[in-house]
Parts: sequence; C-alpha cells; structure tokens
Amino acid sequence: MNIISFPDRSQWSALLTRPVQETKDIEKRVFPILEQVRNEGDKALRELALKFDNVHLGEIAFSEEAISAAGDLLDEELKAAIGQAYKNIYKFHKGQLQAPEKIETMPGVTCWRKSVGIEKVGIYIPGGSAPLFSTVLMLGIPAQIAGCKEIILCTPSDHPAILYAAGLVGVTKAFRVGGAQAIAALAYGTESIPKVYKIFGPGNQYVTAAKMLVSSEGIAIDMPAGPSEVAVYADDTAVPAFVAADLLSQAEHGPDSQVLLVSTSKKLLSTVNLALPSQLERLPRKELAAQAIANSKAILLESEADAIDLLNQYAAEHLILSVANAEAVSEKIINAGSIFLGNYTPESCGDYASGTNHTLPTNGYARAYSGVSVDSFVKKITVQHISEEGIRILGPTVEAMAEAESLEAHRKAVSLRLKSLE
Amino acid sequence: MNIISFPDRSQWSALLTRPVQETKDIEKRVFPILEQVRNEGDKALRELALKFDNVHLGEIAFSEEAISAAGDLLDEELKAAIGQAYKNIYKFHKGQLQAPEKIETMPGVTCWRKSVGIEKVGIYIPGGSAPLFSTVLMLGIPAQIAGCKEIILCTPSDHPAILYAAGLVGVTKAFRVGGAQAIAALAYGTESIPKVYKIFGPGNQYVTAAKMLVSSEGIAIDMPAGPSEVAVYADDTAVPAFVAADLLSQAEHGPDSQVLLVSTSKKLLSTVNLALPSQLERLPRKELAAQAIANSKAILLESEADAIDLLNQYAAEHLILSVANAEAVSEKIINAGSIFLGNYTPESCGDYASGTNHTLPTNGYARAYSGVSVDSFVKKITVQHISEEGIRILGPTVEAMAEAESLEAHRKAVSLRLKSLE
Repeated sequence: MNIISFPDRSQWSALLTRPVQETKDIEKRVFPILEQVRNEGDKALRELALKFDNVHLGEIAFSEEAISAAGDLLDEELKAAIGQAYKNIYKFHKGQLQAPEKIETMPGVTCWRKSVGIEKVGIYIPGGSAPLFSTVLMLGIPAQIAGCKEIILCTPSDHPAILYAAGLVGVTKAFRVGGAQAIAALAYGTESIPKVYKIFGPGNQYVTAAKMLVSSEGIAIDMPAGPSEVAVYADDTAVPAFVAADLLSQAEHGPDSQVLLVSTSKKLLSTVNLALPSQLERLPRKELAAQAIANSKAILLESEADAIDLLNQYAAEHLILSVANAEAVSEKIINAGSIFLGNYTPESCGDYASGTNHTLPTNGYARAYSGVSVDSFVKKITVQHISEEGIRILGPTVEAMAEAESLEAHRKAVSLRLKSLE
Repeated sequence: MNIISFPDRSQWSALLTRPVQETKDIEKRVFPILEQVRNEGDKALRELALKFDNVHLGEIAFSEEAISAAGDLLDEELKAAIGQAYKNIYKFHKGQLQAPEKIETMPGVTCWRKSVGIEKVGIYIPGGSAPLFSTVLMLGIPAQIAGCKEIILCTPSDHPAILYAAGLVGVTKAFRVGGAQAIAALAYGTESIPKVYKIFGPGNQYVTAAKMLVSSEGIAIDMPAGPSEVAVYADDTAVPAFVAADLLSQAEHGPDSQVLLVSTSKKLLSTVNLALPSQLERLPRKELAAQAIANSKAILLESEADAIDLLNQYAAEHLILSVANAEAVSEKIINAGSIFLGNYTPESCGDYASGTNHTLPTNGYARAYSGVSVDSFVKKITVQHISEEGIRILGPTVEAMAEAESLEAHRKAVSLRLKSLE
C-alpha cells in the first residue's frame, strides 16, 4: 500500500476522492434495452438472452419444484450455515419493525404512523462465477418481515444455493433473467414477470445504469451503487495480520474495490504492509486483489481526532475500528454504512451472518443514505383523527395559517366545520 | 364532477391514470442552468436572478438580524398560530426518533443501529403569491429533531413568516435564491451557499426537474414530485358540505390538482355535486379550482371492498375516509400518503398544524414511498461487536458461506482469527 504520512487537511479531499464512474455511455446502451422490454415483453427477454448471453431461454419462470428441491442439492454444512445466517439476519431485522404509537398532539387530535409492506418488490441477483445467495437472504428477509405480498426474484443463475435461499425468504416467483433486461422486466412488467414498485439488488454497470434510469421514471430503487469499499482505522492494539486479511477481503471483490487504512501508528502501517504480500500470494483471486491493493492508500495521521474527521469526510461503506476504544470512537462517527468494532469483528461476518445487512451505501452516499433494512421495504402511512373537541381547539390555528398562505378553500374546510359546531 | 357509475374493474386502471408529466424538454432547459451554477457559483446566481426574475441580487444571504427580527413584522394571531403548529409538529415528529437497541443475535455477537442526523441538508421554499411558511416547519422541524448540523434554506421570498419559521426550526443559513439555480447551488455549493447532502422541498417543474437531475448524480432528494391530490371515500354518514369543501381545498392548488371522490352511495355523490358550485363561487381562486373540479372524477362503486381495492390501486397522496367505520377501513389501506378519519378531520389540518407532515408522495409514489419524517433526515448506521466467544460460534457459518461464494479472502479473515484462538 502507498503510505501517505501526515497529509495536510487541504489535501484530504483529493486523497479521498473515489474514481468517477462514467455512466453516460452505458446509459445510452442500456436505454434501448429498457425500451425493447417495455414494448415487447417476454419476446424481448428471449432475444436479449440469446444476443448477450448466448442463452436459449426456455421456461422463464423457475418452477416451484426447482425451488423446493434446491436444498437437496446442497451439502449439509452449507445448508446449515445458510440456516444459521437466516436466523441471525431475521433476529436483527425483526427488531426494526415498529408498532404504531398514537400521539395526541392536542386534546382530541390524534396522529400515528402505520408501517405497511410495499406490496410488490423485486430482487435482482447477478450471475457470474460466485452465486450471491447471501444477497438473497439480505434482501429477502427484510421483505418477508415487512410483509411484502409479492417478492419477485430475477437471476440468471440457477445455483441451488440461490434457489434454496429464495425458498427460505418466501420469494413468491423467481425468473431466470439477468442483466439490464431483468431490471426492465421488473420495472415495466412482461407477460411472465409482474411489475413491481421497488427494485433491490447489486449488479454490473449495466444493471446499475438500468436501475438509475427506471428510478428517474419513478420506480423506487434501494440506493445508487458504486464499487464496494472498506476503511480500517487501527492502532497498536490491532493484530496486523487481521487488518491485512480484512483489507484483502475487500480487495478480492475486484480492481475497483476501494481500500483505505488509517492509523496514528507508523509501526502498525508498516507491519500491515509487511503482512499483505504473503496473504495475497495464497489467494485464488490474487490478480484482482493485487490491483485493488496497488490503488489503495494507507494514511498516517497525528491524532485520533484527525482520524475521526478524515473517516467522517470519507464516509466509508464498511468501517472497521480496530482500536482500543472502538465503541467510543464509533460514537463520533457520523458518516459510514456499517461499523465493525475490535479485533474479532471482521467485515466478513457482517457480509454473511452476524445479522446486519450487507447492502450498504458506497461512494460516499453514506453521508445521506442508510443501508437496506426493514425500513426499505415498508411505507409509513400517517393517519389522523380529530374529534369535535379537537377541531374546536386546533381549527383557529389552521384558519390563521391558511389565510396567511392565501389558501382560502383550505381555511373554509375548517371554518365550515367550526360553524357546524356552534 | 363527472360521476362514473359502477365501472368494470378492467376500466379502473384507465380511470385512475394521472396525466403524464412530460419532463424531457424541461430537463433540457434546466441542465445548462445547473452547469452554469456548478462552474460559476455566485456569479451565475446573480446572472440567472436578473435573467429569469429581473431581480438584482444584492447580498445573497439573509442576515441573522433579518431572521431574528421577522417575528416583529407578523401579526400576533399568525405568530401564535405558527407557534402552535410548531409545537404539534414537533411533538408528533419527536416520537419518530429511535433509540438504539442492542440485539445479541448469537452469544457474543451484538448488533445495533444508531441514528445520526444527515450533517448538511438543504430546504427549498418557492416564491410566488403564497408564502409557504408551513413547509419551512414541515421540513425544518424533523431536521432539527434529527440533529442535522447545517440546515440551509434557499427561497426567493423574503416574507417575514418564512423567515420567522426559519428561525424557529433553527435554519443555520438562509439565502434569497430561487428556481433551478437554487437546487444547483445546494447540490454543488457556491462561494456563499454550502453544498448539502440531501435536498428537500416543493417547487415548479423547473425545480422538480433540477432535483431529479442532481439526484441522478447521487445527491439525495426527499422524493420525486407530481401535482398534489386527494381522494375522498364517503358514505351517507359524511356531511356533503364538508366533502365539497375538502375537494375544493385540493382543487385550489391549481388546474393540475387531482381530485377523486369514491362512494357506494349515489345520494352522497349527488349531494356533494350540488354543494360544489356555491362553495366554488365564493373562492378567490375559483378559476383554478373550477378547472381541477372539471377534470375530477366521482366514482360510484358496489361495495366497500371495491372502494378499498380502488383506493389501494390509486395510492392517493391524501386519503380522506368520511365513512362510519373509518378507522377499520384505514387498516385495509395499503397505499396512501396520509389518511384522515371522519367528518372533523379535514386535510387542511394535516397540511398545517395537526402534527403530521405535509410533504407526501404524489403520483402513485405512495406505493413505494413514505412521506417526509425524521427518518428522512437521518442515516441509520449499523454497528456490531463480536467477542472471542462470538467468533468461535459464528465463524464456521461465515467460512462455509464465503467458500461457497468463492470469496476466499472473506473466509480467511475469519479462519485466521479462529486459528489465533486455538
């Protein structure tokens, strides 16, 4: 890693800048795909599968049998692991459901919010070398807890772990469709695939561009996406080999993965740097990881206060605090997707099975966005009831405000009622 | 109103379709404005104010004195009304703050979420004939409760009620800038105006287009916007004059306001229709309201079940349930922004002062979006701590899943730690 020692604050912004994703060209190529699916439905899905993936789509939907039998194709250890992850993620997310609380703001004026699951949601899971069944859990479990009536899965993968996870989370229908065309199918609907109101899930730059395009048309999406990233803040109580392993577990995602190490200890930075090559050498994805590590930065700072400021400015998707007073530091962190405390809390655990969600804001979006949670799958509808007593007390306030905003009919809707009670 | 009797379900979708907003042309006109502000900052703001509004911008910022003295320019009745609305809105939104709850998903594996206010938020309040000081309260109060450190207001209006409300909600800086250029200033920052992470507030189609454009660049916005709308479901227990007044209070927003009345009682529909003209006649905005009413629909249905289905399909921003069993019906509503129960709960009360928020999803977005709340102004950061005991119990699950997803470095980050504990 490149070690940068005591950079001036004026340099921080440049140091922390992420590579800009050029999206206009990709959007231009994705737009016709969206149009084709919108106009031609399933026929377009078949043509595009043949054109881009050389796949003859037979039945577009996975059968219920394929889903219910998927578990039989998994080895028992993996099946048990998925079951344990399911339990932990369910337990953590279940606590996010809020019961409505009625609040009487004035006598006779009662207001509350009720959470309702978004009726139809879509989950996209990419294909490729690694079957991301963990993401089926991370998106499906909060949808299940939220009470979404239709949970639609699109994935070009037929890996049994994906279908097994789909069964666990109660996916209502699953389709073997991938790429930007899957996003289009979920956004517009086809003869086979139901239109949904919100689309979740990771994907390559075409999928991401498709999600941004449909989102500008009013289909809700989970959040804008960028390359995955980790920042580690470590001191001399950190185990350098663990820090190196955490950096590499981010780096193996690909050459565009963002890896940042921050410390006030020069010794720690040096020993982590020493530990990296031998661990890297033994990785199957070592070429990918080596590129990400080559682009990564290790920043040496004067003080904990500097480190906290820099981390808040960066707004990492994942932030590992391997420092003696990790929890105290975490309380001063205002921008991050998910925080991991201490030597025995690797990001991997949150990625898979500790219970927290792994769909998190990248690219600095943690300044304004939260990771996926049950909140992402519900609407909170406000409800209010005003009694005769209530309108008598509240009414004059509303009349005065409506009049001042020159909205006379708003005022009259109250005045008429007050008059009827005289 | 046009009364449509017993439409077949196959016709509902056409009946409930909102007018399509053509945005591409507007976006083309807004894009250069955004670029100009991005490149030239305050200079662009001055040029654009002169060009579009014929305004010579002197000082761009409102002075602290202007804000603190604004209350002296208001009459006491209005000042008291704003104060009462502030109290009610504050009380309702305060209940939305969630305390972190630590959840032990397995022994030694502890996960929680902490809510942190978005550090910098921008509020836009349009100018025009009516000073929307109520929207300053609706956006500023949840920002204040969330603990946002910088609350930046842009508005072309210098109405004292707006500045007085800005002072109440703790706006940190306010600027006399309006239109698409104000959104650009908040998104990119200028010499005077700080860049923010999330932008809230209503506006004309230029402002809306600007918000959508900056949102596609990753600046968060409150939600996509469309014309305001109300649906009223009324039975023979409803007071026809009240229903007519509620329809008109929506209609006076403008000719594109969406007004829908649903009933299983032909008599109710007829009596509301009879009450409309005389109430309409007495409104100062009667031309605007008359156009909206001319485009509105009254739909007669067979049963309560039909009415509930139709209302859920429409997904109204505001839904008034003037029926005997209003609360029971509200429990079956899954798509709506805000629900008003009974004869004495006009939408006006929620617009101004009952306590609920008036920034709500229009255009059917209520299927996937919630109205503005304290949630809109916070990020929920997940935090986790795993003890040595915890990693021993959880570790093997993570190892099995990482291996199955071919993410070897993820597995090793756990294996290394487990080995160190042997």
